[in-house]
Amino acid sequence: MTVLDKVNEPADVKNLTHDELIELSQEIRAAVLHKVSIVGGHVGPNLGVTELTIALHKVFNSPVDKFIWDVSHQTYPHKILTGRKIGFTDGHFHDITPYTSQEESVHDFFTVGHTSTSIANALGYAQARDLAAKKENIVAVIGDGSISGGLAMEALNNAGDFKGNLIIVFNDNQMSIAENHGGLYRNLAELRATNGQAENNFFKAFGLDYKYLEEGNDIEALTALFEEVKDIDHPIVLHIHTQKGRGYEPAVENKEAFHWHVPFDLATGQSKNQPSGETYTSIMLDYMDKKIAEGLPLVAINAAIPGIFGLKQFAAKHPERYIDAGIAEQYTITFGGAMAAAGARPIIFHNSTFLQRAYDQLWHDVAINKEPAIIIVKGGVISGSDKTHQGSSAMTWISNIPNLKYLAPTSGEEFTAILDWALAQHEQPVVIQMPEHGLESRASLLTDFTQSSYQMTKMGEKVAILALGGLYSHGEKIAAALAEKGINATLVNPLFINDLDKDFLDNLTENHQLIVTIEDGILDGGFGQKVASFLGRYDVKVLNFGAEREFNDSVPVAELYDRYHLTPELMVADILQVLAKK
Amino acid sequence: MTVLDKVNEPADVKNLTHDELIELSQEIRAAVLHKVSIVGGHVGPNLGVTELTIALHKVFNSPVDKFIWDVSHQTYPHKILTGRKIGFTDGHFHDITPYTSQEESVHDFFTVGHTSTSIANALGYAQARDLAAKKENIVAVIGDGSISGGLAMEALNNAGDFKGNLIIVFNDNQMSIAENHGGLYRNLAELRATNGQAENNFFKAFGLDYKYLEEGNDIEALTALFEEVKDIDHPIVLHIHTQKGRGYEPAVENKEAFHWHVPFDLATGQSKNQPSGETYTSIMLDYMDKKIAEGLPLVAINAAIPGIFGLKQFAAKHPERYIDAGIAEQYTITFGGAMAAAGARPIIFHNSTFLQRAYDQLWHDVAINKEPAIIIVKGGVISGSDKTHQGSSAMTWISNIPNLKYLAPTSGEEFTAILDWALAQHEQPVVIQMPEHGLESRASLLTDFTQSSYQMTKMGEKVAILALGGLYSHGEKIAAALAEKGINATLVNPLFINDLDKDFLDNLTENHQLIVTIEDGILDGGFGQKVASFLGRYDVKVLNFGAEREFNDSVPVAELYDRYHLTPELMVADILQVLAKK
Repeated sequence: MTVLDKVNEPADVKNLTHDELIELSQEIRAAVLHKVSIVGGHVGPNLGVTELTIALHKVFNSPVDKFIWDVSHQTYPHKILTGRKIGFTDGHFHDITPYTSQEESVHDFFTVGHTSTSIANALGYAQARDLAAKKENIVAVIGDGSISGGLAMEALNNAGDFKGNLIIVFNDNQMSIAENHGGLYRNLAELRATNGQAENNFFKAFGLDYKYLEEGNDIEALTALFEEVKDIDHPIVLHIHTQKGRGYEPAVENKEAFHWHVPFDLATGQSKNQPSGETYTSIMLDYMDKKIAEGLPLVAINAAIPGIFGLKQFAAKHPERYIDAGIAEQYTITFGGAMAAAGARPIIFHNSTFLQRAYDQLWHDVAINKEPAIIIVKGGVISGSDKTHQGSSAMTWISNIPNLKYLAPTSGEEFTAILDWALAQHEQPVVIQMPEHGLESRASLLTDFTQSSYQMTKMGEKVAILALGGLYSHGEKIAAALAEKGINATLVNPLFINDLDKDFLDNLTENHQLIVTIEDGILDGGFGQKVASFLGRYDVKVLNFGAEREFNDSVPVAELYDRYHLTPELMVADILQVLAKK
Repeated sequence: MTVLDKVNEPADVKNLTHDELIELSQEIRAAVLHKVSIVGGHVGPNLGVTELTIALHKVFNSPVDKFIWDVSHQTYPHKILTGRKIGFTDGHFHDITPYTSQEESVHDFFTVGHTSTSIANALGYAQARDLAAKKENIVAVIGDGSISGGLAMEALNNAGDFKGNLIIVFNDNQMSIAENHGGLYRNLAELRATNGQAENNFFKAFGLDYKYLEEGNDIEALTALFEEVKDIDHPIVLHIHTQKGRGYEPAVENKEAFHWHVPFDLATGQSKNQPSGETYTSIMLDYMDKKIAEGLPLVAINAAIPGIFGLKQFAAKHPERYIDAGIAEQYTITFGGAMAAAGARPIIFHNSTFLQRAYDQLWHDVAINKEPAIIIVKGGVISGSDKTHQGSSAMTWISNIPNLKYLAPTSGEEFTAILDWALAQHEQPVVIQMPEHGLESRASLLTDFTQSSYQMTKMGEKVAILALGGLYSHGEKIAAALAEKGINATLVNPLFINDLDKDFLDNLTENHQLIVTIEDGILDGGFGQKVASFLGRYDVKVLNFGAEREFNDSVPVAELYDRYHLTPELMVADILQVLAKK
């Protein structure tokens, strides 16, 4: 019988001997590694906090005392200790979600996936506790990578004014997703080097009490520290130095690659599937190399996610042209826009779900000032991702910002043509929706994207299909299927996500009775609804295909396509039904 | 001849004697006070930085050296010194905008109005400068209120890594719009008390060089400081202690009221027009008093704008129930949502333009977690405001977040009925669009707002008018005008901004050939486009009335209504035209 066999809830941790706790940490690591090596997932963050998590559950009394995890990608050990170890056994990996979830356990308080929220969330719980005159420890656990996000610092500032119990466990593993960036990390290094005694102290500057622990992977030391601050009557930061990837050599050696990893061979740490060949990413990287060689003052900016865009490769070649701002999405947009205003040619890379954090900066800095920055957006599509990282809303919210050109190429050639045009102009910001369904080849009919200009790729009648961006090929399939039914449908590549080609639409109404739009995202606020509104006064019907406005949690794409009638077969059936009604 | 008569551009400042510079500061103050007492505007911020601005222009060489102002509501002295003093003379007050504007002057680099952007903007200019191997001083001017915003701190962190010239003038007048909140302000107080020598230093913790100046309204001291750091080769923070409202007793005595002020009597500081009577604001305040008396764990949360909602009054009565988080919109939403999740009943107050900064927090904290917070949104309408504070996009972007109930009451009774329901339920967040066109009285037909339920207030045929929220009375006028033309139109109060009442719409199509929607904001992404999309497959026409997706800069509302056909007359004409085509 293993130690883990005896642990089914937090109370079981409290009875273990010191040796058993150490054995438990090893078994937890093995369970985590077993799972992530097979299905992929966050590796380093979980291995680093194993001892910290055990010590938290040993000292505090969850769920009366509340652990509030930042990002919550480091909660596998917490899940294992709170009745969810089955999720780490064969055949049950997908029984649990990769983040915290109130639906999954009473030991979880938030569904999170974005960084830098834990201190604000913990303060909410702490102040509600005090209002209800209850007595609970509220413990936020936040990593050093997350602390550079503005929300985390806004919360530190408010914590500095708070009068009640609040324990901020600052898990310093010296790494963000990639390496950390910014001046505050020099202060953290000084604090680590001086056992917390450095002249300046980032946390004390916010008025917070502070303790440092060097042995962040030592259960005994952690337990003693937590015992010391349990039931404290004011906010305190516990700066704990841990090792990301602890206990698995490949993850220690290569911390960034093992932050999140696809399935890998446990013995060697090698990925099981290596992608190869040309992709939109490789086109982008080659393109930037070329433009820099041509003398363009091009810079590549991102917020702690270089791996998603292959930017490590770019940074190695052009270190002086590469800026990773750390987890600071707002900053990347205001800063990048300003660089564009000042004459440089910034290209800002974002995953759509994280770019949401810079919404105001898109409006009030980039758009109002018409700063000619280029923003490349990945992941802005209907996907099978978890609830906290969905990109299906990208078009919903990027579309409706004035002055922002927002384009959906359908092929590598269109992608390059857009980049050429975007870099040649200085009049406006351009957002490019990176296609997500594999590289396609299709000549670009446009070289100038100043005016919205839909492209008719097949002239027909009765039914016109406007298939946007990555779902353009769905349009081709529908047109083919309708042809088999004797309907010669018109096929259109609209490409312009948010600017209607009104003349084109006006012309379409002359020999079509049904206009169909297809988009890879939530309908509300997107492309199709703009078309429907414009055509409202015409004697024509409109069918908008896209996703519902809802959150989905790791639902397979095929199931979502069925639900939303986004398969060619279901769309053809709907089209025929509307035509029959006429 | 005054000194100001001799100053038409920054170069003219450089030739003045010390006595003339002091005389100039007094003349600038008089010009600012003359204007704002007549047309209203920012008072305290401009009076506080008069000497600082003179010293900047004396030492640096604008526009080669670049001043980048945070918020830019403190740039009246800068405008006066850069060729725009005419904007402070009778008959020309509106010749210039209240914020910086590139269109207005080569000495302005950004159109801004939201806080906390200047350091990020300055870093953009500084890095572009270095890429182009140019030599310029880049000077950000930021107030102590703005530094609590996450974007400002993200930028401080990135500044700490930067290697080139960057001068951050930190204008510490000990005030945000209201008083400051948060632990970092204790550190600033310590720094002021120790002439910059306190043990902890907020700026040094970000790795930044630092100098303190106590005499922030002394031109000589300021000039010496700026001379000292001119052409510096690394980033430095100049912490300068100024006095908000300097030189005008009422503004010094009552700093918050004179941050921004409506027209006032210069001799007494009294407002020229005092609002009176019941308003949506007074209803809200009375309602909260009542609910607290009933024992509800209600708290009122805002981000540095208590004045807009009359919350000073609330804070005085219920100090333990009042939270001003400082300029930290992101924090208010994550924190407030967490309080709701923890069982308290937070009501979060926001001006729609500033709430944009918490967009991600609405999605990823409040909406995903279905936290039953109530968010009251003001200013979310078509208005004559400047470009950087428009609320016409509120429905565009709040509407499309899943799980978020978003309601537009048309009367005090509906407002109260919604509050009753929202506080009684615990299932979801509720956003209430505060009406902006004066208090109206109209009984609420609903007490339960769980399901979308449009209300037919006048049953007619042929044309149905769905008039949302504050523009409901437009619908009444149109119906009356159509009646005169012999058309018995149906009138609907939809109230639910983002959830369609599909059965209701389905029924409408039976005896109506035209559905008209009216909304007080940008059409894209809003209410009408959802209706148009849903009705696309029906044999009915749809006309959506609302604003275009564009920025407007202080355009009078009447002109905007004309442009968007939002007057009852123009809408009736459009309706008749569509009907005639049938």
